[in-house]
Amino acid sequence: YPESEAEMGSVMEAIQAQDLVAIAYGGGTSVVGHLQVPESPRPVLSVSLERMRRMLEIDPECGLASFEAGIRGAELEAALRPRGLTLGHYPQSFDYSTLGGWVATRSSGQQSLYFGRIEELFAGGRVLTPGGPLELPPFPASAAGPDLRQLFLGSEGRMGILTRAVVRIRPLPERDELHGVFFPNWEAAVDCARELVAAGLPLSMIRMSNPEETRTSLLLAGHPRRIGLLERYLQVRGLRQENRCMGLVGLTGGHRMVRAGRRSAWRILSRHGGLVLGQAMGRAWGKNRFLAPYLRNTLWELGYGVDTLETALTWDRVEAGVEAIEEAIREALAPWEERVLVFSHISHVYRSGSSTYTTFLFRLVDSPQDLMERWQAMKRAASLAILGSGGTISHQHGVGVDHKGYLGPEKGVVGLGILRGIFSGLDPRGRFNPGKLLD
Amino acid sequence: YPESEAEMGSVMEAIQAQDLVAIAYGGGTSVVGHLQVPESPRPVLSVSLERMRRMLEIDPECGLASFEAGIRGAELEAALRPRGLTLGHYPQSFDYSTLGGWVATRSSGQQSLYFGRIEELFAGGRVLTPGGPLELPPFPASAAGPDLRQLFLGSEGRMGILTRAVVRIRPLPERDELHGVFFPNWEAAVDCARELVAAGLPLSMIRMSNPEETRTSLLLAGHPRRIGLLERYLQVRGLRQENRCMGLVGLTGGHRMVRAGRRSAWRILSRHGGLVLGQAMGRAWGKNRFLAPYLRNTLWELGYGVDTLETALTWDRVEAGVEAIEEAIREALAPWEERVLVFSHISHVYRSGSSTYTTFLFRLVDSPQDLMERWQAMKRAASLAILGSGGTISHQHGVGVDHKGYLGPEKGVVGLGILRGIFSGLDPRGRFNPGKLLD
Repeated sequence: YPESEAEMGSVMEAIQAQDLVAIAYGGGTSVVGHLQVPESPRPVLSVSLERMRRMLEIDPECGLASFEAGIRGAELEAALRPRGLTLGHYPQSFDYSTLGGWVATRSSGQQSLYFGRIEELFAGGRVLTPGGPLELPPFPASAAGPDLRQLFLGSEGRMGILTRAVVRIRPLPERDELHGVFFPNWEAAVDCARELVAAGLPLSMIRMSNPEETRTSLLLAGHPRRIGLLERYLQVRGLRQENRCMGLVGLTGGHRMVRAGRRSAWRILSRHGGLVLGQAMGRAWGKNRFLAPYLRNTLWELGYGVDTLETALTWDRVEAGVEAIEEAIREALAPWEERVLVFSHISHVYRSGSSTYTTFLFRLVDSPQDLMERWQAMKRAASLAILGSGGTISHQHGVGVDHKGYLGPEKGVVGLGILRGIFSGLDPRGRFNPGKLLD
Repeated sequence: YPESEAEMGSVMEAIQAQDLVAIAYGGGTSVVGHLQVPESPRPVLSVSLERMRRMLEIDPECGLASFEAGIRGAELEAALRPRGLTLGHYPQSFDYSTLGGWVATRSSGQQSLYFGRIEELFAGGRVLTPGGPLELPPFPASAAGPDLRQLFLGSEGRMGILTRAVVRIRPLPERDELHGVFFPNWEAAVDCARELVAAGLPLSMIRMSNPEETRTSLLLAGHPRRIGLLERYLQVRGLRQENRCMGLVGLTGGHRMVRAGRRSAWRILSRHGGLVLGQAMGRAWGKNRFLAPYLRNTLWELGYGVDTLETALTWDRVEAGVEAIEEAIREALAPWEERVLVFSHISHVYRSGSSTYTTFLFRLVDSPQDLMERWQAMKRAASLAILGSGGTISHQHGVGVDHKGYLGPEKGVVGLGILRGIFSGLDPRGRFNPGKLLD
């Protein structure tokens, strides 16, 4: 538990001198095995950043703030908001995950469409590498050679330990709206998302659930009376139960820009048969935005396992990709004659495409080994479907151990060789989070 | 002059087999020695991409288009615009510089504030490295490890030759306005630029000249009658000749967003004593936007040398930085008892800071060696002032040979080691543009 950069420096020396294996520990919220302790003849040290959670500097004029890397999302926002400032990075793990973890795994926030992914927010900082400290100056922009920030982003602990990070902050936006919307079918929802992001509006979120996810969400929503009213309204407006899709559209920024953006957005929406249901639905989602992971435990107690996986696809591949991934998971348990409930949404959109996020529910069985085999069958089938659909093996969760077998096709032989060379050049004895990202 | 990827592949093999040194040649517009032929016992081959200028694929729905890397800026826009599409990348070298060159040097365009720097526009492509082809898939976003695109961007030919690039295109914006503005002084102009970019408006350009550049521009503008009227108007409005600063503000996007953005922008402007002079001034600049480099030849014939240099600084350092850089250049010719005319502007703004761009005019002398010494004295003094001010050695020109001596402080020992390791890992015999970026 080092408490400062100096102490972390001593820890680094000890790791080298005593030939330890080291894994930096932030919030412990990884879902792909970033923190898995490897089998190793060498002792494995978990280097917790729990005592490195201070804000070091803040410069509202430059929109920059410097933090120790162990600070959690909620703490970081709590330090900025009383000053009227925000980072605006809200991954679902926000309450526990740390700034250093976000950077090491290329994290994405729920409102990254407006505030930017961590790649855009991470302006610089200091990494203690086994070869010495690497300073990343927070220039506004630079053409002076390759960007080393972008090399550390996503390096998953293989290059050493980030001790401090400078991030790009901004004034709290005047408005931050989240509207519930409905579409007659999935194709309309996806097309509308694509046109919205192409229109250059001050959007902070576009999230569209496919029909199966829409059905499941409404079933699990509680509030039977309110949902009943909603059902009737949607029927009157001609949205058929089998095909309709629920969505959320966020608008963020100054009053004037949000007003103009909202008008433009609703015009696009209505061209696709979309209905705007107002901000109550958005607020309901907002209240639970960081709680979905806890549902996992409840379902487990009820006898169901649940997991999620995700990718990013160019727009031409989104619909076929989601279908292929869902189908692969459904089919994966056929040998056991088990059914799986699978549904998806798109939640992070870009001008050239979108992330897709698939949830699957399956019955638990008593034998842990049997359960593991079933999960692996689904995970493998889905990962191959992702690669087959032309997607990245991860849009937001990272690689860790669960995805490293699928990184090869994406980075290629030359690409993997470059990464391997960087890691072994800095850390020839493989002491820092070995076996993660790539072998 | 290879005409296809296959032919380029054969060229790559020949380079390896015959142990040649190779320099990829695009538009030949580098201003920092990217293409300088090194003294080498090995034969040096200039690999021209002049015959690789085709558009390969276009997908308006995904906003992606694929080009051979030798295509020039003007040709690329000519291929897109009849389809109602644009890339929106307008460096001053636009007429000649190529897509491949932009990527290799991390180019920035005049309207990058709206369209994005080449880092954001370059979605992927194929690099022929000495170790084999490196495919960079155009995912919308990815958390699967470090971003290899960002490693190739700015590698200045050291990793091999880019043969094709996929870029992010978009529909031609409904509106593209450029307004001339004036400020009572430099501080007001810089503060206003900072507030404008912080406000989240659909801006495509903010350019502010300091008082010396304003004076010089008005003197060289021609149109004495029109300038006379302008002078009188500015005097009536109380802008004193010694301090006033000229600027340009560009607004781009849909009608509704531009209208709302313009209103917000003018409110911020008037808080800083800014005057809006309308779009005529913007159009005048627009007509000559790619012509400034030609002025160099005219001035040379008149007996004056001219050069420019640039950096990017966080907002707290912009004013002091510009002063230090200008002062360093002015002082540099003191040993020769020569005066230098120096002036600056900011032209690419970011939430955390701005680029600064300094022009200097000096008298030519007959002896080429004497002239070179003088230029080197100015360049060295300015580069040290840039580093001393906390700036990057280049915001848009790149490193080449002119800046490589100053890259060390910026990347650090560990950072330079990483880059050196990557280059020598891919190209152990140093055949690809050796001596550029770093030794």
